[in-house]
Amino acid sequence: MKLSAEKIVLLAKQLQIEELKHLAAMSQFVGVVGHLIHNLQAERGASGIFLASAGDRFADIRLELAAESESVERELRTAFEPQLKRAIYGNARLLHLMAWVLLGLDELPELRIRISEQKLTADDSIAAFSRLIAGLVSLIFEVADSTVDPRISSLLVAFFNLVQGKELAGRERAVGALSFASGICDDVHQQRILHLIDAQERHFQVFGEFIEEQLMAQWQEVQDASCIAQLERMRRMLCNARQTTALDANLSDKWFETCSERLTAIWSIQCTLVDRLEELCASLVNEAESDLQDSEGLLKALREHPPASAELADKFFNPAIPVENALSFVAHAGGEAGQRRSIVDVLQAQSQRLAGMETELVAARRALDERKTIERAKGILMARFNLSEDAAYKRLRNASMEQNRRLADVAEAVLTLAAVS
Amino acid sequence: MKLSAEKIVLLAKQLQIEELKHLAAMSQFVGVVGHLIHNLQAERGASGIFLASAGDRFADIRLELAAESESVERELRTAFEPQLKRAIYGNARLLHLMAWVLLGLDELPELRIRISEQKLTADDSIAAFSRLIAGLVSLIFEVADSTVDPRISSLLVAFFNLVQGKELAGRERAVGALSFASGICDDVHQQRILHLIDAQERHFQVFGEFIEEQLMAQWQEVQDASCIAQLERMRRMLCNARQTTALDANLSDKWFETCSERLTAIWSIQCTLVDRLEELCASLVNEAESDLQDSEGLLKALREHPPASAELADKFFNPAIPVENALSFVAHAGGEAGQRRSIVDVLQAQSQRLAGMETELVAARRALDERKTIERAKGILMARFNLSEDAAYKRLRNASMEQNRRLADVAEAVLTLAAVS
Repeated sequence: MKLSAEKIVLLAKQLQIEELKHLAAMSQFVGVVGHLIHNLQAERGASGIFLASAGDRFADIRLELAAESESVERELRTAFEPQLKRAIYGNARLLHLMAWVLLGLDELPELRIRISEQKLTADDSIAAFSRLIAGLVSLIFEVADSTVDPRISSLLVAFFNLVQGKELAGRERAVGALSFASGICDDVHQQRILHLIDAQERHFQVFGEFIEEQLMAQWQEVQDASCIAQLERMRRMLCNARQTTALDANLSDKWFETCSERLTAIWSIQCTLVDRLEELCASLVNEAESDLQDSEGLLKALREHPPASAELADKFFNPAIPVENALSFVAHAGGEAGQRRSIVDVLQAQSQRLAGMETELVAARRALDERKTIERAKGILMARFNLSEDAAYKRLRNASMEQNRRLADVAEAVLTLAAVS
Repeated sequence: MKLSAEKIVLLAKQLQIEELKHLAAMSQFVGVVGHLIHNLQAERGASGIFLASAGDRFADIRLELAAESESVERELRTAFEPQLKRAIYGNARLLHLMAWVLLGLDELPELRIRISEQKLTADDSIAAFSRLIAGLVSLIFEVADSTVDPRISSLLVAFFNLVQGKELAGRERAVGALSFASGICDDVHQQRILHLIDAQERHFQVFGEFIEEQLMAQWQEVQDASCIAQLERMRRMLCNARQTTALDANLSDKWFETCSERLTAIWSIQCTLVDRLEELCASLVNEAESDLQDSEGLLKALREHPPASAELADKFFNPAIPVENALSFVAHAGGEAGQRRSIVDVLQAQSQRLAGMETELVAARRALDERKTIERAKGILMARFNLSEDAAYKRLRNASMEQNRRLADVAEAVLTLAAVS
């Protein structure tokens, strides 16, 4: 078959279908990643209490949760395989994150032994689980970041922000539980909890911007649940605790339960979102397949009754369509009604679709870029002023409030300053 | 071989080499695209004069130039083939643009017949060539936009801006030549020339931001060439021409020659840049290959003398490294000196490289995004106020000067306004 515009048009459409199928596989993949995160969060919370209580409490629960994590871990390892076979589609960064996560998973048994033998502080145990979970969350971010379909990208941005918000809520559960269990919540832990509360709300807000109404209603129910009032009361106790007065250690269970109730509710939203993602991918694949069939039919008809070259030239070189906007950047009006459709029309319709997709993609891309900016700015502050992550975040946050500017803008300013100084 | 972090690390490095090799092929490809653009520009200029002089002038030159274009066109068609075989790496948008360009090339013979038979105005002929060239320029843009290596991406951004600036200079040559030849330069053509001058300077400025010193010196020579003074004098004649006084038609040749001299100088810079791109790709491939060999060696040594799991766990779960910044977003310090290197170090070094590349990529990406924003804003103004491209650009430009804001910021504001109204 001679290399022709027709051939490439069909190839481009086939490629899009391949990409969408790949995204469908990716959606399942991030679903499993989200599942493992959920299990590790529970294990982290229980391990923290176990260590803070010097092995007194949650000994059995911890082991049960570890067994559950191991089962989902096997599922994830299986899900990695086909990803590698399709590595050609992937990018080096995604593979890199997979290697990192796999390494962490390989070292989990060693971590669990140390926890069993109480060779670790509760804080270090929480940090260790959190590091592995951060790798898993980054995997989801990377998948969202490399997605070019705007509808799927939007849902992945929502998914990432939900999972990251939930992860911060999970860390809050762990830190709070061990504060109650140990009877004190010192300055460092208070600051951490404040940071965790603040950052999770930020992620949940972005999540809310990218979901459909139906899911929003479900999300509102989570926000209004009775456990939230309970949670807020205990948050207040933690954050206002005097360093000299002991916290009620018995509240540790209540705190853990309340947080868990909320996390379970968020988890159910997460499951709904994964279903939604898979449905969306399937329907987009169908749509693209029927579009390909239409185009094949049209082009076959055109081959049988080819238009005169003059007719095509008229369309292609139509001076009524401005040069710059003939393609790629701006959608423009198609051929006039009544005119016979031609390959030029197929291409122009496709231009319009691609331009539309690009425009829609902007919002999702921006949300992801803002996250990168904030993380980078935090890293710079940490390195430059030798700050903890919580303290770096607090600086950004304070500057944002004082100057009444968006957090992302303050972060951007930090990066600019770092680049010139 | 069991699925291990080691295996994925090596796979990621192999993938990067594949990507770099693909970029090397792409660099050659954009070189050919740039070459065809150069030839079509000359043909466009000659065809314009031919038509404006009612077939009196440039009849032979036009045919010679057409023959040259056809020869480079064959080269480009050959270069398309391997691109399609590697379509898996490409994206739907790139394929779409290739189809568009191919269609235009298929219709070129028809366009040439119409020009020979003088069935076309000079303006419409210029617009027709310009539309095809715009497609070719967009191909270069798309290649630059989908490149993830920051060093190559920077050079491609420079290349795109040079080619686009040169294309605007080429259009200026064509419009000016036919104005001189026809003896008048009316309002519409004056506005077009002003737009073309202004827009080409903008592109050349961005070009200057992304090239190395050596090339900058060469570029300065082009800017300071004696033909430029000559050009500016004739530009003034065109832009200030009274609608009632005839221009000296004999200056048409002089104008064409002067512009051509400048375009030839720019063309030589373009050739240097293509060479530079190919050199860079080759050296990056070498670098990546030797990095892969190092890693293979290290990982082989580690397989033979595996570290205790405890040692790896210590490194992976090291609480001294903050959770959020353990990977992906911010480069952080590697393992301590003297410690045995492990897979964790390999991964951390890679994190650092990827984070560094991402940071470097930001500037190139921004330059491309700004261009998209400006083109989109122009499109919106054209559609909404029924403006010509020149007039839409003028509005943006005026607002930018009046408000003392960057053109890209004004364009961004137009998009925001369009989204909410």
